[in-house]
Amino acid sequence: MKPRVAVSMGDPAGVGPEVVVAALGDPRVLAALEPLVLGDRMVLERAAALRGVAVPPLREVTRLGERLSERDLGAAALGYVDAGIEEVQRGAADALCTAPLSKHRVSLAVPGFQGHTEHLAARTGARVAMMMAGPRLRVVLATNHLALAEVPRRLTSEQVGFVLRLTARELIQRFGIAEPRIAVCGLNPHAGDGGLFGDEEARLLKPAIDEARREGLFVLGPLAADGLFPRAAVGACDAVIALYHDQGLIPAKLLDFRETVNVTLGLPFPRTSPDHGTADDIAGQGIADAEPMVSALLLAARLARAADPHL
Amino acid sequence: MKPRVAVSMGDPAGVGPEVVVAALGDPRVLAALEPLVLGDRMVLERAAALRGVAVPPLREVTRLGERLSERDLGAAALGYVDAGIEEVQRGAADALCTAPLSKHRVSLAVPGFQGHTEHLAARTGARVAMMMAGPRLRVVLATNHLALAEVPRRLTSEQVGFVLRLTARELIQRFGIAEPRIAVCGLNPHAGDGGLFGDEEARLLKPAIDEARREGLFVLGPLAADGLFPRAAVGACDAVIALYHDQGLIPAKLLDFRETVNVTLGLPFPRTSPDHGTADDIAGQGIADAEPMVSALLLAARLARAADPHL
Repeated sequence: MKPRVAVSMGDPAGVGPEVVVAALGDPRVLAALEPLVLGDRMVLERAAALRGVAVPPLREVTRLGERLSERDLGAAALGYVDAGIEEVQRGAADALCTAPLSKHRVSLAVPGFQGHTEHLAARTGARVAMMMAGPRLRVVLATNHLALAEVPRRLTSEQVGFVLRLTARELIQRFGIAEPRIAVCGLNPHAGDGGLFGDEEARLLKPAIDEARREGLFVLGPLAADGLFPRAAVGACDAVIALYHDQGLIPAKLLDFRETVNVTLGLPFPRTSPDHGTADDIAGQGIADAEPMVSALLLAARLARAADPHL
Repeated sequence: MKPRVAVSMGDPAGVGPEVVVAALGDPRVLAALEPLVLGDRMVLERAAALRGVAVPPLREVTRLGERLSERDLGAAALGYVDAGIEEVQRGAADALCTAPLSKHRVSLAVPGFQGHTEHLAARTGARVAMMMAGPRLRVVLATNHLALAEVPRRLTSEQVGFVLRLTARELIQRFGIAEPRIAVCGLNPHAGDGGLFGDEEARLLKPAIDEARREGLFVLGPLAADGLFPRAAVGACDAVIALYHDQGLIPAKLLDFRETVNVTLGLPFPRTSPDHGTADDIAGQGIADAEPMVSALLLAARLARAADPHL
């Protein structure tokens, strides 16, 4: 039995609809999963015609007309995500894969909207973390959308410990890695070089790592981040914990950009998405690269299979 | 006429001597430059025998015996660097390439020693910046060995402007790029996303960039660092200004590690070095990879040639 993947169509004015239909027409994806798109029939029919593929199985969430406001587009895009969550929660899908929405346009409908990850956490009551998963690197962020100056103030031992345990659990349960090896970046250059540049390694990171080791986890670090990533990319560990956004996303995006998938850890179900935006400037031209969406769909299916021996 | 490159041998107990002799025996290096090693004959003879190559042209700076203390090793390594500086300053060499020393061991002889770059700046009275130059990426650091918490406090518009102008000047004069395009990273995730996460982009970076543009420089940014590096790696710009150590060194080391060379910008002469340490654990085994030293030597020669039409 193939895993069933709910796919939110993304912002109707972005590249989401066309990369969704193109990716769902890809033989690798057809072979790996049963999709259910949450979206709008007219928008998807246009996208399918544009890309020369069939309209995939669809649950109509909206019937959009023409001349939509930015607010309407944002509300629709969020509606597809919520419909996808419903499908997974009622057992009609095994995983969720989300096409890009515009945070700006959603926030016109839902003031304060921060993004898919935060929305999924709020809707499910889960404490989550973001992983970027590529063929050579898996990186999990301990903090995300924080000003750099806030990172040393807000980073806590408790959060590092939480992310370590969550990463280990998901690597075991969803990635099928029986004994995961996880490496933790230092916060400071050269991981502080023995306290010369900052004390967070000794004060925050070592206690969290020691505690995780006492619980039986295999943890490396804290290690100088610039030395760690090249070794992680050749297999020295199964995942790297980065302490702030750019520390993790610079290496994740530099290697294998098209195959690197955003995964939300901590949800009751697997959730993936391609790591690009709505790219409004090229939407509707039929040129948007569907490969990141292919990668996101294939990983959603793989995570669902690992979590459920019947799939 | 080939450029003459002064080569400091590095710490006698590290891999420096053996990668120096191995690299200087490489046909690409023999074709590109005239070396003069600053070092110790006995140490180099042993290294040459170990690697099966000839002893390169040498100015003997030390006559080391056996059973040297860490302090002696550090003092000797720094002596080779100082002798190399002398060779360039008296016009007997066109560029300096330094093999690795141990900051710890040098600091036992010279308390407070911070590293090659800072030492070269002090010895020449120059204001310098560090560039990592690889085949796909050139990255210049606006700050270096600072605790992450200090970065937002210490980073100034003046420093960013200095690094921009210095990078432009060296790209023109030493790298032979007539109209360099330089991109500046944002400090915060998504370059602050319009002020949502931190205000340094508007407060510090834009003024420095605007000023540099008024002076005629081609400057992009501030740009989200995670999006910038993949584009820089495929040619979107000639150099990236990173605002702190890990922001620049993570991508620089992740791509083309063996061919990525540390270059000191701002000195009266070109100076390069391989970006690895003394690797004491493998020193003397004949297995240390000489390719980073080959890359550093070739770049030293190239920078010297671009700066002097007679070479």
